[in-house]
Amino acid sequence: MTRYSVILGNLGNTCDRFLSSGYKDQPPKAEMIRQAAAIPGVTGVELVGTWDVTKENVDEVGGLLAKHGLSCVSIIPDHFSQKRWGRGAFTAKDPSIRAQALEETMIAAELARKLKCPLINLWPGQDGYDYAFQSDFRLERRWTIEAVAKAAKAYPDIRFSLEYKPKEPRTHSTWARAADTLLVAKETGLPNVGVTIDTGHSFVAGENVAESAVILSDYGKKLFHMHFNDNYRSWDDDMIVGSVHLVEYIELLFWLRETGYEGWYSMDQYPYREDGQGALRESVDFLRGVESLLEGTAMQEIRALIAEGDAVKSSAWLRKKIFGK
Amino acid sequence: MTRYSVILGNLGNTCDRFLSSGYKDQPPKAEMIRQAAAIPGVTGVELVGTWDVTKENVDEVGGLLAKHGLSCVSIIPDHFSQKRWGRGAFTAKDPSIRAQALEETMIAAELARKLKCPLINLWPGQDGYDYAFQSDFRLERRWTIEAVAKAAKAYPDIRFSLEYKPKEPRTHSTWARAADTLLVAKETGLPNVGVTIDTGHSFVAGENVAESAVILSDYGKKLFHMHFNDNYRSWDDDMIVGSVHLVEYIELLFWLRETGYEGWYSMDQYPYREDGQGALRESVDFLRGVESLLEGTAMQEIRALIAEGDAVKSSAWLRKKIFGK
Amino acid sequence: MTRYSVILGNLGNTCDRFLSSGYKDQPPKAEMIRQAAAIPGVTGVELVGTWDVTKENVDEVGGLLAKHGLSCVSIIPDHFSQKRWGRGAFTAKDPSIRAQALEETMIAAELARKLKCPLINLWPGQDGYDYAFQSDFRLERRWTIEAVAKAAKAYPDIRFSLEYKPKEPRTHSTWARAADTLLVAKETGLPNVGVTIDTGHSFVAGENVAESAVILSDYGKKLFHMHFNDNYRSWDDDMIVGSVHLVEYIELLFWLRETGYEGWYSMDQYPYREDGQGALRESVDFLRGVESLLEGTAMQEIRALIAEGDAVKSSAWLRKKIFGK
Amino acid sequence: MTRYSVILGNLGNTCDRFLSSGYKDQPPKAEMIRQAAAIPGVTGVELVGTWDVTKENVDEVGGLLAKHGLSCVSIIPDHFSQKRWGRGAFTAKDPSIRAQALEETMIAAELARKLKCPLINLWPGQDGYDYAFQSDFRLERRWTIEAVAKAAKAYPDIRFSLEYKPKEPRTHSTWARAADTLLVAKETGLPNVGVTIDTGHSFVAGENVAESAVILSDYGKKLFHMHFNDNYRSWDDDMIVGSVHLVEYIELLFWLRETGYEGWYSMDQYPYREDGQGALRESVDFLRGVESLLEGTAMQEIRALIAEGDAVKSSAWLRKKIFGK
Repeated sequence: MTRYSVILGNLGNTCDRFLSSGYKDQPPKAEMIRQAAAIPGVTGVELVGTWDVTKENVDEVGGLLAKHGLSCVSIIPDHFSQKRWGRGAFTAKDPSIRAQALEETMIAAELARKLKCPLINLWPGQDGYDYAFQSDFRLERRWTIEAVAKAAKAYPDIRFSLEYKPKEPRTHSTWARAADTLLVAKETGLPNVGVTIDTGHSFVAGENVAESAVILSDYGKKLFHMHFNDNYRSWDDDMIVGSVHLVEYIELLFWLRETGYEGWYSMDQYPYREDGQGALRESVDFLRGVESLLEGTAMQEIRALIAEGDAVKSSAWLRKKIFGK
Repeated sequence: MTRYSVILGNLGNTCDRFLSSGYKDQPPKAEMIRQAAAIPGVTGVELVGTWDVTKENVDEVGGLLAKHGLSCVSIIPDHFSQKRWGRGAFTAKDPSIRAQALEETMIAAELARKLKCPLINLWPGQDGYDYAFQSDFRLERRWTIEAVAKAAKAYPDIRFSLEYKPKEPRTHSTWARAADTLLVAKETGLPNVGVTIDTGHSFVAGENVAESAVILSDYGKKLFHMHFNDNYRSWDDDMIVGSVHLVEYIELLFWLRETGYEGWYSMDQYPYREDGQGALRESVDFLRGVESLLEGTAMQEIRALIAEGDAVKSSAWLRKKIFGK
Repeated sequence: MTRYSVILGNLGNTCDRFLSSGYKDQPPKAEMIRQAAAIPGVTGVELVGTWDVTKENVDEVGGLLAKHGLSCVSIIPDHFSQKRWGRGAFTAKDPSIRAQALEETMIAAELARKLKCPLINLWPGQDGYDYAFQSDFRLERRWTIEAVAKAAKAYPDIRFSLEYKPKEPRTHSTWARAADTLLVAKETGLPNVGVTIDTGHSFVAGENVAESAVILSDYGKKLFHMHFNDNYRSWDDDMIVGSVHLVEYIELLFWLRETGYEGWYSMDQYPYREDGQGALRESVDFLRGVESLLEGTAMQEIRALIAEGDAVKSSAWLRKKIFGK
Repeated sequence: MTRYSVILGNLGNTCDRFLSSGYKDQPPKAEMIRQAAAIPGVTGVELVGTWDVTKENVDEVGGLLAKHGLSCVSIIPDHFSQKRWGRGAFTAKDPSIRAQALEETMIAAELARKLKCPLINLWPGQDGYDYAFQSDFRLERRWTIEAVAKAAKAYPDIRFSLEYKPKEPRTHSTWARAADTLLVAKETGLPNVGVTIDTGHSFVAGENVAESAVILSDYGKKLFHMHFNDNYRSWDDDMIVGSVHLVEYIELLFWLRETGYEGWYSMDQYPYREDGQGALRESVDFLRGVESLLEGTAMQEIRALIAEGDAVKSSAWLRKKIFGK
């Protein structure tokens, strides 16, 4: 039974570098939680540290979630939206910033325990580099491994999931692709460190997202978490799921089932100019549509198509699913 | 009423630079014509000069087509598969090669008249350049304009349609994108010169293919011909239509109807490892599926969606079309 | 004699969607103008409407520029950074917004006259669309043509230069590529409407920027203005010129000379984490370095290389220029 | 002291899917070996199994190499150019083809021993898939791991180096990126299995090639071999080194030195329309030029730039290297 969640901030205001004040208005947190709970199928939320949840408001937030029957699915420490992270968090050349990045992770884990949240999703977006001759690749990768290992050892009851992305806000991220990031997770040697696939990040990385899911799964069940959104493959447009791709999502959901993925399907979008709740609702509804295609004998049929490998037959199968004939 | 055609050579052998002898075997021409005619919905073929049709065999080919009830939809002069074109056809630095490229075009037009074929599709694939400081952009564009104008003036009863493609076999093609090529067509000042969209070429160019169709249509009905295939946007994979994209084809077919496109829907693929007839049949069936989505009140509904511009609503419309709910 | 300018705002704070408060601090305008003037070789600035120059402060700004010996090279009306433009300026579905977009253009032209600035650079970044079935391509292109034509007719002494960009902040811009935008400029039928090349936008569009410059020049001298920056071709990273590309800039500057481009070389960057003045200075110094490669007999040598088209020879030429042997 | 080699076939004829008979003529093998030896700096060649070296001609080839003072640097088993590999070699669904792929690898290792060649470069280009629902990702990756492990165990004195490439001739390769392929190498658990970087393949993969070299080096010295060529990042154009990129090669060679890479610098190109020897010579000369930039105090200077991470300073350093001022 698939469990759907949303990143709470997706219901808030959105901005970009040209319109920094934002395209919309920011609703109150209670309203955002209410909106999340009202999306059919959604039973969990992800929270961003500092933005959504802090030591000060954790009890209040927990109460609001409980009131609306929502689980806290993951906490994402804020390693990206403050000036201090501008030149990196875990990979900052300044050791005091690196210490703060770890501290922020520890705080998030502490909050997670309070909220009975099982997972910290690490997306240190400012970690990476922009220019040639700017990054000591070896050192900086090791710093991330050490920081993650420290946090994961301190909180063995929490899973730490590393979210990769090829670029933005840096021109090159430290955790850029599925397999690179799996290497980082494996280097920690800890069972509670794994990887998050964000479908849009995977598209931008030029990956076949289904294949990435299988690779992560195949090496010790390291696919811990899934973020869903869509884009045109050149940039992380964070669009409504299914607005661009279809086949890729069918293949992905097939393999998530096939490999026994048991995590959440979490919506992660940036509805700049759209109604946030509507965008998330449509995304969940689209994924439920894909799931409906996989009912009945479909899983068996796909296995047979894969075993045979005849593209004419798989095209025919797909066409009949889409057009009903 | 949509008319479907196929490029005859798609039913033959396919090769690439690593397997130059080809992935399959080459069937006899009569067999290929028989196979084309047997694809449900297909009533036309495109022929490549020298490969498929020559002065010597034109009557025989015409007879075979007539026997199977097929129209000759277009002739594509061979400006790409002979050693003499290796450094360009219309843009060759050697003037005698340029003269031959024009001559080949004239021959194709002559053959077209014999076959009552209304259109010459020009894809001078070797025209362009590979390296910096290799092309005199001004001169070479003018050479193509002059050659096309000469042919089009000589055969005012034939339409000459310029097919663009960003790269391959050159790293940069002279006719690279829709609007660049429209400029070339317009510079000839002739009503019988227009542009061919190959959907795969347009994907590789980073275009929204529906928008390109509208731009070409909007400037004097210059969209003369359509080639259909699919790919992953980074290369001209020439795959079965619908194996990668869906939304783009729906939007494209909507706008082809909306702008009154009256040409053929022609399949242009490279089924390297697939059964050629099966690949073409699936492509036509996919497009017929898309057409079925546009029946009834769908055109009106899409117009209303466009007028409103609300992505949540258009996502919902699309989802219901795909999943039936 | 090449004239260099900078966009004034490049010396200010920078933000992105993750760090909306910005990576740096905002200096006072007088300080930014002082910094611009202090960059060796820079004798002009571009100003953004509302940000940098308004009816209220135009005299003050003019005074500051004069004091520092700077020309106002262009004014860029603000069609992108206010909430009202969020769903488009010239292509907004709301006619009152479209009227405001024209009004903003007229104001900029008025300010330009006051500052003896010869050019309005139009970059309506919010014009375009994000999703399928969201844009009436025909209508919206026509709206932009009509608006530009109105402004250009009203201010025949000012040049209006249309800056294209494939995407961002929309997933698809209305003025996306060089040739598309040239078509828009030509449709106005006005001699004072042309096109701006931003090198980074051209890279993202998959263009060979030198070829785009030639195409724009070749159709009636329509290349009006140049913005310089660098990126990795997948996104508008707005980096220091020369930090990624070299060959492309040499070929571009060759053709700008060859086609008699007489406009400014204007730096347009986003030094998120860099010292703004330093980033602009390096960019100008890099371009001056490229210009030094073109001195002496270099122009003749390149013409000969192009005429011959031998990539081995042009590689050797290039190598000797770079490594001095 | 850097050692340069070339792939022998680069001196022969070249074809593509449009011009399958080739752009040039095929010289005799002895002539190609003579040409390779005549390129200044080149002291080794790579040979392709069946094309260049077989059980039958191995002594003759060995004699020719010895005569010209050339080492055999690597043998590349032919897993791509025969019809039997059309649907995969190590990943073919037909087990008899998979057995043949292993057999071909064993033969190559045997030939390598005879030629005192230390390395087998595995590029099973046909391994992968084209369409959705065509590949059993888990099974096929395991097949490749098992086959490589068998060969590497049988020939512990030979290094087996896995060359990755994102696509072509399949739309998706099994060994697609650096880190994916490192995982395969590590899974064999054998010290004589590593990874080959082809710079062009890495560019197409969207990697920073220097970073990939560091990652491979950092996990147990797994960077075994280097292929050099250039392209426009969208496709494996196999161009002359330095015809497109510069900064990337400087950063790469810096890190190859820094991480103690001791393998060959091997040229792997496809000079479709160029003189093969000239293209290879220019590539070697370009790399020697880059090496000259790294002489003197340059390594120390770059280390300091990296430690500081200031893009303005590294741009200035680079500019002075290029323009001499």
